[in-house]
Amino acid sequence: MQAMFWIAVGAMCLATGFSMAQKPQPCQAPPLYTGEVTVGTQNEQLWAVGKYAYDAFNQRIHLGEMGTFNNASFTYNALMLFQEGVMYEIYHHNKTCVKKALQSDFHPMEVPKGAGFLNQVVLGTSSSSGPGLLVNNWWGDMPDKQGNYMVSFTEFGCLPVSTLSKTKNMGWVSVSYYNNVLGVEDPDVFIPPPFCKDAKLEANEDGKVTDFFSLFH
Amino acid sequence: MQAMFWIAVGAMCLATGFSMAQKPQPCQAPPLYTGEVTVGTQNEQLWAVGKYAYDAFNQRIHLGEMGTFNNASFTYNALMLFQEGVMYEIYHHNKTCVKKALQSDFHPMEVPKGAGFLNQVVLGTSSSSGPGLLVNNWWGDMPDKQGNYMVSFTEFGCLPVSTLSKTKNMGWVSVSYYNNVLGVEDPDVFIPPPFCKDAKLEANEDGKVTDFFSLFH
Repeated sequence: MQAMFWIAVGAMCLATGFSMAQKPQPCQAPPLYTGEVTVGTQNEQLWAVGKYAYDAFNQRIHLGEMGTFNNASFTYNALMLFQEGVMYEIYHHNKTCVKKALQSDFHPMEVPKGAGFLNQVVLGTSSSSGPGLLVNNWWGDMPDKQGNYMVSFTEFGCLPVSTLSKTKNMGWVSVSYYNNVLGVEDPDVFIPPPFCKDAKLEANEDGKVTDFFSLFH
Repeated sequence: MQAMFWIAVGAMCLATGFSMAQKPQPCQAPPLYTGEVTVGTQNEQLWAVGKYAYDAFNQRIHLGEMGTFNNASFTYNALMLFQEGVMYEIYHHNKTCVKKALQSDFHPMEVPKGAGFLNQVVLGTSSSSGPGLLVNNWWGDMPDKQGNYMVSFTEFGCLPVSTLSKTKNMGWVSVSYYNNVLGVEDPDVFIPPPFCKDAKLEANEDGKVTDFFSLFH
């Protein structure tokens, strides 16, 4: 009987130990990958799909997207070089570039600092080995934007799955991430095209891009 | 050189054959499982989280949810027995039941009939074996509700991942599905509790529940 008691206590200690050790930790996405996004806003002002290449080693992001903004369709192609502090808006159709200053530091794709752990869920199922994805949900406040957010990252690999943020200006903004591939097939996407060479730095209001999430706020 | 040509042609035929054969097909969810949902509406009228047990063999669904509706919090616990054509709204706190007629047939959890294939995406990544979930997206119209929808099911296992629908009445309704487990741990959840025995059939406006999706429209 006593043995049973100690086995039970031992099991409880083990369980506690596991739950402490295995509590999900904020994580950072792989430093080099490509992925796709779909963005939508509650007010239906913005809807977009895009593809991006992400390089945290050299602090570079290349984003190409198309969608509608205020019922008008648009395409957008931007290369952000945070180490140089510049971004290029690239217009391939007429081979022109707009060069702007990035007024902030590179922030890696990660669970935001200060985020609180919300819960862990399985998309699909954990009942069989194939069709399940273990995801951690995190939430936090954005006092500067009078808003808050929820972000989801995979437990294994720390890849973004979705973000949902609410700010006073925009209402809800939903971003879904998918088709992530580790590595960047064509590193040339981070090199400004030749026709950007002579682009002059323009005054801008967009320079406050700080991270990937901010692009959609 | 000729050999190379035929190898190339053979490879192309194989590739075509594969792509024809592997085009995702509409599918039906496993007949017996439990899962969780989060529901939100664009107009912020409804927000809810819930847990449900689903039995397509015997055409039964048990849904328990809690949330806010028009800024008032609520809990809801309903057992739908489609073969009998009745549903019970169960109030455990005071051991009462409301019994209503289900005026429609059971519709299984599936890619809706007539849905069009939209695309296939990977949540997480396919770059390593663990953290990826292959998902098929489908869309269609709901002419009776002047709306349309997009639904996502896993390629393997045909489990629901999300639905997004837009109707004239509700605007956008977003449902996320997660923590699906094959089988139902406690089949008692499909048996009306004893205190429902004497519930009389009440006139209702809710009887038009036809499937799981309809619960949230």
